[in-house]
Amino acid sequence: MKKIVKVGYVGLGRRGFSVLEKCFSQMPDVEISVICDQYAERIEKASDILVKAGRPRPLATESYDELLACDIDAVIIMTGWHEHIPLAKKAMLAGKYTAVEVGCAFDLSECFSLIDVYEQTGSPLMMLENCCYGRNEMMALNLVKKGLFGEIVHCDGGYHHYLPDCELFKDINCDHPHYRINSYISRNCEQYPTHELGPISKVLSLNRGNRMLTLSSHASKSVGLRQAAKDILGEDSPFAKLNYRQGDIVTTVITCANGETIRLCLDTTLPRPYYSRDFTVRGTKGMYAEERRTVFLEGMAEPVENNETEMYEKYDHPLHAEYSSLGTKGDHDGMDWLVCRAFIESVKNGTNTPIDAYDTVSWMAIAPLSEMSIARGGAPVDVPDFTKGKWLSRDPAPKGKYCLDEVCEDKDTPIFPAE
Amino acid sequence: MKKIVKVGYVGLGRRGFSVLEKCFSQMPDVEISVICDQYAERIEKASDILVKAGRPRPLATESYDELLACDIDAVIIMTGWHEHIPLAKKAMLAGKYTAVEVGCAFDLSECFSLIDVYEQTGSPLMMLENCCYGRNEMMALNLVKKGLFGEIVHCDGGYHHYLPDCELFKDINCDHPHYRINSYISRNCEQYPTHELGPISKVLSLNRGNRMLTLSSHASKSVGLRQAAKDILGEDSPFAKLNYRQGDIVTTVITCANGETIRLCLDTTLPRPYYSRDFTVRGTKGMYAEERRTVFLEGMAEPVENNETEMYEKYDHPLHAEYSSLGTKGDHDGMDWLVCRAFIESVKNGTNTPIDAYDTVSWMAIAPLSEMSIARGGAPVDVPDFTKGKWLSRDPAPKGKYCLDEVCEDKDTPIFPAE
Repeated sequence: MKKIVKVGYVGLGRRGFSVLEKCFSQMPDVEISVICDQYAERIEKASDILVKAGRPRPLATESYDELLACDIDAVIIMTGWHEHIPLAKKAMLAGKYTAVEVGCAFDLSECFSLIDVYEQTGSPLMMLENCCYGRNEMMALNLVKKGLFGEIVHCDGGYHHYLPDCELFKDINCDHPHYRINSYISRNCEQYPTHELGPISKVLSLNRGNRMLTLSSHASKSVGLRQAAKDILGEDSPFAKLNYRQGDIVTTVITCANGETIRLCLDTTLPRPYYSRDFTVRGTKGMYAEERRTVFLEGMAEPVENNETEMYEKYDHPLHAEYSSLGTKGDHDGMDWLVCRAFIESVKNGTNTPIDAYDTVSWMAIAPLSEMSIARGGAPVDVPDFTKGKWLSRDPAPKGKYCLDEVCEDKDTPIFPAE
Repeated sequence: MKKIVKVGYVGLGRRGFSVLEKCFSQMPDVEISVICDQYAERIEKASDILVKAGRPRPLATESYDELLACDIDAVIIMTGWHEHIPLAKKAMLAGKYTAVEVGCAFDLSECFSLIDVYEQTGSPLMMLENCCYGRNEMMALNLVKKGLFGEIVHCDGGYHHYLPDCELFKDINCDHPHYRINSYISRNCEQYPTHELGPISKVLSLNRGNRMLTLSSHASKSVGLRQAAKDILGEDSPFAKLNYRQGDIVTTVITCANGETIRLCLDTTLPRPYYSRDFTVRGTKGMYAEERRTVFLEGMAEPVENNETEMYEKYDHPLHAEYSSLGTKGDHDGMDWLVCRAFIESVKNGTNTPIDAYDTVSWMAIAPLSEMSIARGGAPVDVPDFTKGKWLSRDPAPKGKYCLDEVCEDKDTPIFPAE
């Protein structure tokens, strides 16, 4: 087992910087050996943050090839969406453990190519889907894997987050406006499904005994973003005159080999007062619903509702029970820390990742698949079986603290490794 | 204007009896001239209830033809689903105002046939969709029609109601088990959409400037009802051994001519602790969401949430503001009374009905359309334009207290007519 994981870290924009600062730079068993970005000022800022955290100043480069040539165990890719797959393939071909921030492919061909490289190299790949380690998502997973919801029949999830003022138009007049805006201008698809599909995928054991078979997406008209541009940037802004292709609400239904349905929703351009992932799990014996903060098991006179203390006391996943007793760390209620640890532990132990190459690539495929379906008026499209039949007999991912396919009690692996 | 509406009333099962007892028998301007059912004991019970309410004892018959031959203005059809359309056609051919309880067609051909009879006779038809007169639904309608939500983009709705213990298996061993069980045994479709689609239809001005274009439905596997039969009726019950065709969760997406999407959900056979219609309206300037009891208008620092007093004080539909000040009547928070009054006022005034023949028939078409789509793996199917192009230029339904196409202030028409 490795004591120290040496990392090459690429992409130091808002998200990359924040995860470096609040997670990886705080891990004594992680050495950020080399950092890479196309902007020198970002590299400098990141170097400073590492030094400030008492860590060695990393090598710094604008060349990804130079990064890959370093003596590193793993590559962490925190760039914009376009670079995820090309950079991941290069890292895997260089024999590195590879992590990518969330995001989707733009075309199915990229997905096939990525899985080919995985199968050719065997280099483990992991999407850093933090919501798989969300406390409520893991609580539901805990109940599912213990059989308390009975047979699982249906899951809902959504990305309900009004983005114009906090993301899409926030830095629109700066040097580097958010690259996502171009996707809203030119594409119409479920372009951001993994925060909900990731946890649902684990609930339904996708790629390990189950798989997605078909996908249908429908998009509403697109009027919210133009209205938002008018309101936020003014009538004269060029963004207030664009015809955005991205529909305001995209509804996607996925059918699974074992008969379950999954409903996803992209909802980012119409005003709403609260963020939600609308995470919902329905079984023959019980349910979890994020919107009503409800756990219900058959036979209960009343659900546990709007009472987090009682809910976590009864149903918390052991990982979160331990984590909350220690005090959480990092952003997004601590789940960022956990997903980063999950990756690092895999590298240390030389095992496959809990969100593995097949998970990663099948989730990345949702955007192009939904784009096809919408373009065909909502016609169902086939979800490729990237495992090529291996889903029929694949075992749960390696057991351990961060396993998402089973509930593994593991007190030996520290969430906060010592210096 | 008619002072007294003479009614023939058919179907005295649980629902028919209850609406007779709590609504129509309490209306001094309604005379229940004749009642009809296939079971003599139901007729007797209904006669007694009318007499007990101080009303004349009605004619009683097991023959619908005899009912139609009476001197009546209107026919109210409260039978099981199978009879709705055949009985409605006969009533319309007899020149009567015709009301039908909620329910769907079994085949599209019935819908075409029903609308043909309407166009041939001109006899007004109305589905008694009580949820169109729900307080929250009308509050949202009020906000929509006043433009406060901006341009409407998307609506959600569902029938989230666990039926095995309260309906499907409750009287299963009696002489007349609920007829719905046969639909669950043999069909797989969105078989009960109108409680949510009705109000959504009015929000989106369907059949009056807008229409449904396509529909796609997906059903999950069917395991809930069999499990429920085991739990409620015991392992040895024949109902615990059936393979039910009806999927537990059916998700339907409808696209509209004006670019809106509608998402419906049928959710009646998996355990859940609360009833919900999940009524949600999303626009470019605001939203309403039943699940979080939230009204949000752009520019608000905080939504109005979980505060019915404030919500109704600010946004109540004028009909409900008046109604609640008088004290509501009848079941389902008073909306049953309102939908019955809406029909009676149309007969009295000789106008079209606020939920008219085109509304009724297009809502009834959802079940067979969804059955087709599910059978084709979720392929989108065309929603017929029953108006044959008239939706392009149809005006809002007749103005008045019960209008659902506009918000009409009308204090002259009493909600509770005097003796």
